[in-house]
Amino acid sequence: MSTELVNISAERRLRDLGINLPRPPTPLGAYVEAVQTGNLLFLSGTLPVERGVVKFVGRIGGELSVDDGRRATRLAALNALAIAREHLGSLNRVVRVVRLGVSLVTTPDFVEHPKVADAASELLVNVFGADKLSVRSVFGMETLPAAACVVLESTFEIEH
Amino acid sequence: MSTELVNISAERRLRDLGINLPRPPTPLGAYVEAVQTGNLLFLSGTLPVERGVVKFVGRIGGELSVDDGRRATRLAALNALAIAREHLGSLNRVVRVVRLGVSLVTTPDFVEHPKVADAASELLVNVFGADKLSVRSVFGMETLPAAACVVLESTFEIEH
Amino acid sequence: MSTELVNISAERRLRDLGINLPRPPTPLGAYVEAVQTGNLLFLSGTLPVERGVVKFVGRIGGELSVDDGRRATRLAALNALAIAREHLGSLNRVVRVVRLGVSLVTTPDFVEHPKVADAASELLVNVFGADKLSVRSVFGMETLPAAACVVLESTFEIEH
Repeated sequence: MSTELVNISAERRLRDLGINLPRPPTPLGAYVEAVQTGNLLFLSGTLPVERGVVKFVGRIGGELSVDDGRRATRLAALNALAIAREHLGSLNRVVRVVRLGVSLVTTPDFVEHPKVADAASELLVNVFGADKLSVRSVFGMETLPAAACVVLESTFEIEH
Repeated sequence: MSTELVNISAERRLRDLGINLPRPPTPLGAYVEAVQTGNLLFLSGTLPVERGVVKFVGRIGGELSVDDGRRATRLAALNALAIAREHLGSLNRVVRVVRLGVSLVTTPDFVEHPKVADAASELLVNVFGADKLSVRSVFGMETLPAAACVVLESTFEIEH
Repeated sequence: MSTELVNISAERRLRDLGINLPRPPTPLGAYVEAVQTGNLLFLSGTLPVERGVVKFVGRIGGELSVDDGRRATRLAALNALAIAREHLGSLNRVVRVVRLGVSLVTTPDFVEHPKVADAASELLVNVFGADKLSVRSVFGMETLPAAACVVLESTFEIEH
């Protein structure tokens, strides 16, 4: 990737990708969506929510396909970006994504977690650049809040 | 909330709430209950333990009700406060709770995770103040150590 | 433990223990194995992988025994050490392990999670010293990537 590409800002990349971020989600309880401490920005787990409605309910590998799981995980990542922008004013203040925790509800024999989790990772790479890959952990859960098929945990490093 | 209320210390709030913290739990293996690095205090996952006994065993939504789950989650949070106080000397050194990870053992059709997790969040808000809400992620697990129905992960920001 | 023992370096301990670290694992998707921010080194979840093959597949408490689970968890920890050394150049730059997240796939009635998780904790204590215990959280998952029986999340504090 050329220096020119690396230097394009995250907000510019989002526009070039034609992505309009959703309205940031509203907490489902006594918590907030983002907390900054030092140069780390911790986000609450994001769901595949659009306008307050969980769009992907069920088990991946069962009633939901791998592609459904990918769409859900991308939507959870869009919500994470919306929260980060609201908190920071601009995504250009993000130095990198540090960590993604991808928790999926799956059938007992499901093994394609990485393919589903990549839907979040690929979106974030497209926005922040190929030199800004995060670490990642992926889990298969029994259940998640509101019967969502995915919860995405995101931690960002931000400019001081 | 008035400035006066915000300025009341965490230890004073605990007293005003009539809360006596339990004795801090003992590790179940080769780990410690708290590690401080920079201004972050990481805690081991806390269980709904009282005097060494796990008080809430089973699945929430099955043999345990939502109210049982809330009592268990509050007890896990009290254990987290006990660990933090033991490590710091005083809870007044806590700047805020940064993150809560609430892992519940649930039946497959359970969806009321936020209501259960709020039992920890509400306790911590009452102790540290309404301007100190944390981020939160909530999960439904297959099993947890000692058949406990909840493990609570807590990360605090502390004064330097 | 005497001062002499505490002062032995991590690389020296590894040699004394006769441990040869495996080749660091290759990411299964669009992520990296390690990200450093400030004095924290976050690692991706490590699997019980050897030369690209997941060696321990299935449920602990079912087709896998507690001892199988311990071998798997130790192997995941060896992979974490391999990643940390590759990133840092030398494990001697590790100040301590801050946090371990141990996610196991278990049968529904399994309760011996701490015994399994100790296989990672004990290895890390032997390498970094008994005064360097981490915090730890242990979970029982429905599924994990590649049908592995364990994913280990490791966070290190490193020298500036």
